Amino acid sequence: MLATRISIITIGDELLIGQVIDTNSAWIGQRLNQAGYEVRRRMAVGDQWDDIWQALDICGSDSDLVIITGGLGPTADDITKPLLSRYFGGEMVMNASVLEHVTQIFEKKLKRPMIERNRLQAMVPETCTVLHNSRGTAPGMLFEKEKTIYVSLPGVPFEMKGLIDDEVLPILKERFPSEAIIHRTIVTAGVGESFLAERIQDWEASLPTHIKLAYLPHHGMVRLRITGRGKEETALSLELDEKVNALKVALADIMVTDRDEPIEVTVGRLLQTSNLTVGTAESCTGGYIAHLLSKHPGSSKFFKGSIVSYHNAVKESLLHVPHDTLISVGAVSAETVAIMARNAREQLGTDYALAVSGILGPDGGTEEKPVGMVWMAVADADQVHTHELRLHYDRVRNMEQTALQALHYLRRLISKRQKNQG
Amino acid sequence: MLATRISIITIGDELLIGQVIDTNSAWIGQRLNQAGYEVRRRMAVGDQWDDIWQALDICGSDSDLVIITGGLGPTADDITKPLLSRYFGGEMVMNASVLEHVTQIFEKKLKRPMIERNRLQAMVPETCTVLHNSRGTAPGMLFEKEKTIYVSLPGVPFEMKGLIDDEVLPILKERFPSEAIIHRTIVTAGVGESFLAERIQDWEASLPTHIKLAYLPHHGMVRLRITGRGKEETALSLELDEKVNALKVALADIMVTDRDEPIEVTVGRLLQTSNLTVGTAESCTGGYIAHLLSKHPGSSKFFKGSIVSYHNAVKESLLHVPHDTLISVGAVSAETVAIMARNAREQLGTDYALAVSGILGPDGGTEEKPVGMVWMAVADADQVHTHELRLHYDRVRNMEQTALQALHYLRRLISKRQKNQG
Repeated sequence: MLATRISIITIGDELLIGQVIDTNSAWIGQRLNQAGYEVRRRMAVGDQWDDIWQALDICGSDSDLVIITGGLGPTADDITKPLLSRYFGGEMVMNASVLEHVTQIFEKKLKRPMIERNRLQAMVPETCTVLHNSRGTAPGMLFEKEKTIYVSLPGVPFEMKGLIDDEVLPILKERFPSEAIIHRTIVTAGVGESFLAERIQDWEASLPTHIKLAYLPHHGMVRLRITGRGKEETALSLELDEKVNALKVALADIMVTDRDEPIEVTVGRLLQTSNLTVGTAESCTGGYIAHLLSKHPGSSKFFKGSIVSYHNAVKESLLHVPHDTLISVGAVSAETVAIMARNAREQLGTDYALAVSGILGPDGGTEEKPVGMVWMAVADADQVHTHELRLHYDRVRNMEQTALQALHYLRRLISKRQKNQG
Repeated sequence: MLATRISIITIGDELLIGQVIDTNSAWIGQRLNQAGYEVRRRMAVGDQWDDIWQALDICGSDSDLVIITGGLGPTADDITKPLLSRYFGGEMVMNASVLEHVTQIFEKKLKRPMIERNRLQAMVPETCTVLHNSRGTAPGMLFEKEKTIYVSLPGVPFEMKGLIDDEVLPILKERFPSEAIIHRTIVTAGVGESFLAERIQDWEASLPTHIKLAYLPHHGMVRLRITGRGKEETALSLELDEKVNALKVALADIMVTDRDEPIEVTVGRLLQTSNLTVGTAESCTGGYIAHLLSKHPGSSKFFKGSIVSYHNAVKESLLHVPHDTLISVGAVSAETVAIMARNAREQLGTDYALAVSGILGPDGGTEEKPVGMVWMAVADADQVHTHELRLHYDRVRNMEQTALQALHYLRRLISKRQKNQG
């Protein structure tokens, strides 16, 4: 079976000048991949007639499916619709069912009068098949030309996602039955990309051509992605199991998880399995770790809360760090984070508490305590563990790195305790 | 002056399957734009020889500069370097200064033995000019072919950014002196994109061709971006001032800020100007608002801390919400958020406190209190204001929307108070 060739074109000046990050393409890539399809190419062009036209020519020439997002709004900078009408031929016509849908949205949901500009959203090229956008006013459109299918979707992520799931995927599955694609992931920590590659080179060399390995380093961890393709899903899955199990044995000492998930989800699962809870006491991370722990559904089962003590006054009043300690050893010290963790655990009524205090920059560093110096502590019922980090990046990356390393530290201590008890 | 034509090619399967979001391209777009250059096209392809080759052909044929990122790591899935060597001709040779740099990094910074794989990072095609990567081991490379300049940079964001600033921009400025590009931004709230367009259509029609307007709707706000281009920066700036001032007058009632900045920065500036401080009491947002307020440099001047009371027990113990209130009217109510805000203000010792409690989904809704119901409160020295939201999105978007609306609510109350006092 030949792989279906898919291209994505995103349209909008805001993407090229970097005012908006293109999360749409990433989401579409994920979704298609789960369904067994691979995106082969992505292009982003501005709101320029010639550039959009050329992108359609390039992608149309070698793709079975071209997905176009953006440029369908009601304002003057959106030129995609007239362009598509010209590109695929035919006049612009008023589509009765889209008009009714748009009218309904204004009358029932927005409860605002509809203006001419909104009515015009129901005008579509007569050569297109309308794809129903249940979540908004701009219709999706499907065109066919020389064996290639083109779908044009609005750029608003919420609307685009609905159209991909409800309209585009069913069409894709019908027109281009896919072969199976299976991804497995192993996350490792503590060993750099090149050393890891050295360590598993024999394993990597043993892979058949339909199984590929990729290294994805990120914040001091390396995610290994193993991808297999094949006609028969069950057989492929068994084959991958065998390969991945061998890899897990080889990397047992540095493996964090075998799931493709962020570290906070790994931590959450570990806590939930044992019916344990956690809270945080954060200074320099300002609530970021609490945010990571609480952003996923179901987090109330293990996350109880946080005391963000950005100012020292709050460290004293709510976390009962003695004034003398802050004066003598300072807010960024093993002593302070240990007290923060112990008292947060008590105040929040949790099994574990994670505390962090550091200097993330760009300002606030001294010779003795430079930018990038971070102390963290984990308290449980019996003891408090502390750990120091030295980071060398900018503020944003220092903050991410601190949060991930702290969660990783917490994970290690929880697993260790569970193993000792088990 | 003809505009310099710039294309960006990003390489990596992880981009196409959506495992990684392409923030590199957005950052490069921003940086070039600030320097007066426009990116005309972005392409992303996987780690596939033919696809990378074709992307080089397409972008090379009509660009003055092609920026390539990714695919330069030390592992087997990185095929960019051998491909570039073949594409531009010449053998792979060991570059002595890169080898010395890599050796230094291992000896002095990483303090680990260097292995053959690391040594090979100093091999480059003999046709390239090496661009010094002060932040990592993979060198940047510059090639020239038929009047087009190609630069190949590592995909690690921290290293790529250093190379763009230190090496690529100086070359670009020397080879292709740019015309001036100036962006102005006006952020509005409370009026939809199409109504806004209707309201300012005469103003928009009056714009000369070298000034463009774009509408960027995002979470209930619309950002208007006004972009001017011209040979003479001062004259262009004056011309934009005139146009933008007229627009500000026309939109005075709905304008949030005239800076291109996130709402939390607007709030922070407003507080700092008056020497005021803020803290948060967060239930459903789990520390996200505290994170937004604290993530930018200088935030310690106005942000003091937060009590994240994800569990009701923490609302009782730390925010002193009476048990009876939680039983009778519930955690998601005007009464509860008002108490949370008032007590957080006292506990954190701030001038303002912002409190939020709601049901963001996917679970936890009831008929009386459905998913998407959110209460927020702002307390100052004199009073507490409360406000209800009803959201209709998924968990992630509900959380973002809640945070932004809450910050927007806080901003309105602060400005109002300042006006009353002024």
